[in-house]
Amino acid sequence: MTEPVTIDMIEAAAERLAGRARRTPLLSSPFLDEIAGRRVLVKPECLQVTGSFKFRGAWSAISALPEDQRAKGVIAFSSGNHAQGVARAAQLHGIPAVIIMPADAPKLKIANTRAMGAEVVLYDRVGGESREAIGDKLSAERGLTQIRPYDEPLVIAGQGTMGLEIAEQAAGEGVTGADVLVCCGGGGMTSGIALALEAKAPGLRARPVEPEGFDDTARSLAKGEIVRNERTSGSICDAILTPAPGNITFPIMSRLCGPGLAVSDEEAQRAMVAAFTRLKIVLEPGGAVALAAALFRPGQISGDAVVVVASGGNVDAGVYRAALERFGDDA
Amino acid sequence: MTEPVTIDMIEAAAERLAGRARRTPLLSSPFLDEIAGRRVLVKPECLQVTGSFKFRGAWSAISALPEDQRAKGVIAFSSGNHAQGVARAAQLHGIPAVIIMPADAPKLKIANTRAMGAEVVLYDRVGGESREAIGDKLSAERGLTQIRPYDEPLVIAGQGTMGLEIAEQAAGEGVTGADVLVCCGGGGMTSGIALALEAKAPGLRARPVEPEGFDDTARSLAKGEIVRNERTSGSICDAILTPAPGNITFPIMSRLCGPGLAVSDEEAQRAMVAAFTRLKIVLEPGGAVALAAALFRPGQISGDAVVVVASGGNVDAGVYRAALERFGDDA
Repeated sequence: MTEPVTIDMIEAAAERLAGRARRTPLLSSPFLDEIAGRRVLVKPECLQVTGSFKFRGAWSAISALPEDQRAKGVIAFSSGNHAQGVARAAQLHGIPAVIIMPADAPKLKIANTRAMGAEVVLYDRVGGESREAIGDKLSAERGLTQIRPYDEPLVIAGQGTMGLEIAEQAAGEGVTGADVLVCCGGGGMTSGIALALEAKAPGLRARPVEPEGFDDTARSLAKGEIVRNERTSGSICDAILTPAPGNITFPIMSRLCGPGLAVSDEEAQRAMVAAFTRLKIVLEPGGAVALAAALFRPGQISGDAVVVVASGGNVDAGVYRAALERFGDDA
Repeated sequence: MTEPVTIDMIEAAAERLAGRARRTPLLSSPFLDEIAGRRVLVKPECLQVTGSFKFRGAWSAISALPEDQRAKGVIAFSSGNHAQGVARAAQLHGIPAVIIMPADAPKLKIANTRAMGAEVVLYDRVGGESREAIGDKLSAERGLTQIRPYDEPLVIAGQGTMGLEIAEQAAGEGVTGADVLVCCGGGGMTSGIALALEAKAPGLRARPVEPEGFDDTARSLAKGEIVRNERTSGSICDAILTPAPGNITFPIMSRLCGPGLAVSDEEAQRAMVAAFTRLKIVLEPGGAVALAAALFRPGQISGDAVVVVASGGNVDAGVYRAALERFGDDA
């Protein structure tokens, strides 16, 4: 069976993204290397347009739409980072965007999405209101195209552009064999990066990292079939709490990825503080889980170096202050 | 009179720094553009090795020393960022470093300097203990070479490499005429950048930004001669509280720079929070004054775009939390 995402699609996405998305660097600190017991190379996607990697996938998908279809606008469901990525990509294309967000999403993410010109429709995540019903109605009325957050080949191809960059940048650092730890929700970023690495840096192996208790992808990989989380709230890592790996992303991850890792909310907070102190980048909890695994689960990783994707930085000031207050004196 | 720093020296420093210092990107956010009323392009030197631009000058100076002289080691006086830059550059060269620091310097800066292998000697900044006497004695005993923080041609040349990058990167963004706002202590960075821009991007003009009450450089430029600050403590912008512009840096700035700007501590804090919210970078107060001027003093700047050097991010967690607590809900 042919996979729905190919390296050619990733390279085409990279061409569409050129001059639009930032090519984020690889950062490092001898202090982090010491904690981890190996070299740690961090790709700070918090520095990406809209503060997370999601802009890549959103731009990839929207820029590939036929022009008449694109002109009618797009719609997305998202707790925040995909929302902002789609809103900004739509704004830059000059087209309407409707974003359906849970009412309990971080305030900053809701405000940013609105400020980037999108129409935000809030729904009650816990109360059981069907976001799909809301979305279907709006899509039908206005002819909007849905941009799915991860189970969408063009989105996966966009996220895969990070893998192209990692392959080049890691080689530039002399690293050709290592685990690449990726913060994982539905698996769009993990599967995209895995595909790019397969083609460009076969010695690098993508591995998903999730919050403890929400490690659907790790358990699915271990079992060889899709396993769902029992709940999708209850961790501070809001960005990556998805019900299950996707029908498109899971087979790719299953074929290419190493075992998943899981970290506690406390470890995610400590990684946020380590990134503050040592790299001077702002990470949100869900964007810090891969760094947390590199720093605090070294026994589950092999090799002299590890690559970490720090996927986003859209965190409310209060949440950030709490992490600094709790762990800021450990540095 | 020939100036002691030339564009050739800056380009030679760039060659020595290649593969050692990071080429920091230019970041931006539509939200910052809106606050400032013009495009704001931010060069995040907080992402530089050791968390501030100072590594550039330190590496430039140490790498240019004759090998036998370098092997004996180096010594520096610094409240923190120059200390870390010199310590790390010495460590990477495998040579000893002695750093004389004020006892009231930020804890993080003292701890980092020690952790990077330097011998830290603390002195009482307020009590009047002469750091020069301490330093002279150690230098004589051990044959150490002093690496001055700003009034040193090789250090200025190292900082000037930022100007080379800004010239290229701003042109890549279509910006060829703009003010370049630079956080300014003794003027090493400001004068180095000014020299590079003179040669490579004559439409870009460097301008120093200082804390209110410590605007020795702005007043010196206005008066045409070196004027000293009345005090060198009492602002949260510890990194850039110097007594006066240098004897080497001032004539360069006087010839090339536009008028200086000054911002309040509160404006520096608000800029730290804006960088947190919109760019996902961690800035220390002194590293945020140029961004503060861009955001909150738009009437003192001309043109459709402004370039800002965000010079460092070595801030204690408590200071950062205080800024977020005070202004984190403004976003």
